[in-house]
Amino acid sequence: MATVSHPYVPRDLQLPGYVPLAFSQFDIVVPYVSASVLVVAAIWILSGYFPKLSKVDRVLICWWVFTGFTHIIVEGYFAFVPDFFRRKSPFYLSEVWKEYSKGDSRYVGRNSAIVSVEGFTAAIEGPASLLAVYAIASRKPYSHILQFAISLGQLYGCVIYFATAILDGDNFSTSPYYYWAYYIGANSSWVVIPTLISIRSWKKIAAAFEAENKRKIS
Amino acid sequence: MATVSHPYVPRDLQLPGYVPLAFSQFDIVVPYVSASVLVVAAIWILSGYFPKLSKVDRVLICWWVFTGFTHIIVEGYFAFVPDFFRRKSPFYLSEVWKEYSKGDSRYVGRNSAIVSVEGFTAAIEGPASLLAVYAIASRKPYSHILQFAISLGQLYGCVIYFATAILDGDNFSTSPYYYWAYYIGANSSWVVIPTLISIRSWKKIAAAFEAENKRKIS
Repeated sequence: MATVSHPYVPRDLQLPGYVPLAFSQFDIVVPYVSASVLVVAAIWILSGYFPKLSKVDRVLICWWVFTGFTHIIVEGYFAFVPDFFRRKSPFYLSEVWKEYSKGDSRYVGRNSAIVSVEGFTAAIEGPASLLAVYAIASRKPYSHILQFAISLGQLYGCVIYFATAILDGDNFSTSPYYYWAYYIGANSSWVVIPTLISIRSWKKIAAAFEAENKRKIS
Repeated sequence: MATVSHPYVPRDLQLPGYVPLAFSQFDIVVPYVSASVLVVAAIWILSGYFPKLSKVDRVLICWWVFTGFTHIIVEGYFAFVPDFFRRKSPFYLSEVWKEYSKGDSRYVGRNSAIVSVEGFTAAIEGPASLLAVYAIASRKPYSHILQFAISLGQLYGCVIYFATAILDGDNFSTSPYYYWAYYIGANSSWVVIPTLISIRSWKKIAAAFEAENKRKIS
């Protein structure tokens, strides 16, 4: 067997040129959570100055800013910097993905399904999420269909993400802790929240046509 | 090198128990095209008896019937019969997939991204396509959002399908003929038509909200 110099599972995964993690889990998770909380808090306060926005709209704006920046910055870095795990000098975003790969080594292994899903998410869904912020704030008529489209894309990404893992043996996690904390835990928001938004948008859109139909009849 | 007893590329693809194709290309393609034309023609004629349906609605109904049955029967067989290429007695649907695999050997090789996309398409988008037929025919208020959702799912499937092939080296086709006829040709309808339907549904939905907004102002 080849010598293995990385912490990932499966143990026979080949990662030529892999540079070990330099940051601790604390140094990786705390800045991400803090930056997210700060951004969301700032957006929540700012959105309060728009008198026409309901509380639900403001919560949605916070979500779309958070998910948009996560898609563009964090996932964009992963998708479009293929050699992130070989970088000599530690860089925050490459450390994020080396740490996350303890929950799913297909990231550091650059599995093609993962790169496809993440590339599409970063390049299309990320900018579309920021467009959704503008659409909600300025009450555009395409606001619901745009939110529905992005949410469905996020859900489809999750289906491919989890289904390919199961089909390929579901053995990409260093330990049950990382399996539940990273692979399941970190992704769960992108299952639950897009589901809720999809249902809401679907109902709003169906209601708009229902109202239109009634008007035509009366 | 191991002995290779299959016609697929890459030549080192291992397919233990592979049973060679028994049907000719003609015997595979002609029944599929004939059955599709027959079904579409029957649905076109039948839908003419619904006086309230526009020609566009009737064309859409034909599409949803065709794509729904293709998803459920043809793709459903592939997704949920993993050993189709080992079946001793020739069966039409297993012959279809052994033939199509000349354009993309990831099918016979049961690549996990392909199985995930096809499984979701067969189990969710197939039945949803038939629901779209009912929704259009009975003018349900969710008709446009449902058609939009399925079309987006089909497009997302195509993105993953083509992106994973490119990332994995784009070397799964027996010859340029099969590459263009099967891999590109047979899939192109599921890029073009869902794109057109998505754009149409998006516009219809945005227009419904535009009308609602105007009514509230006036």
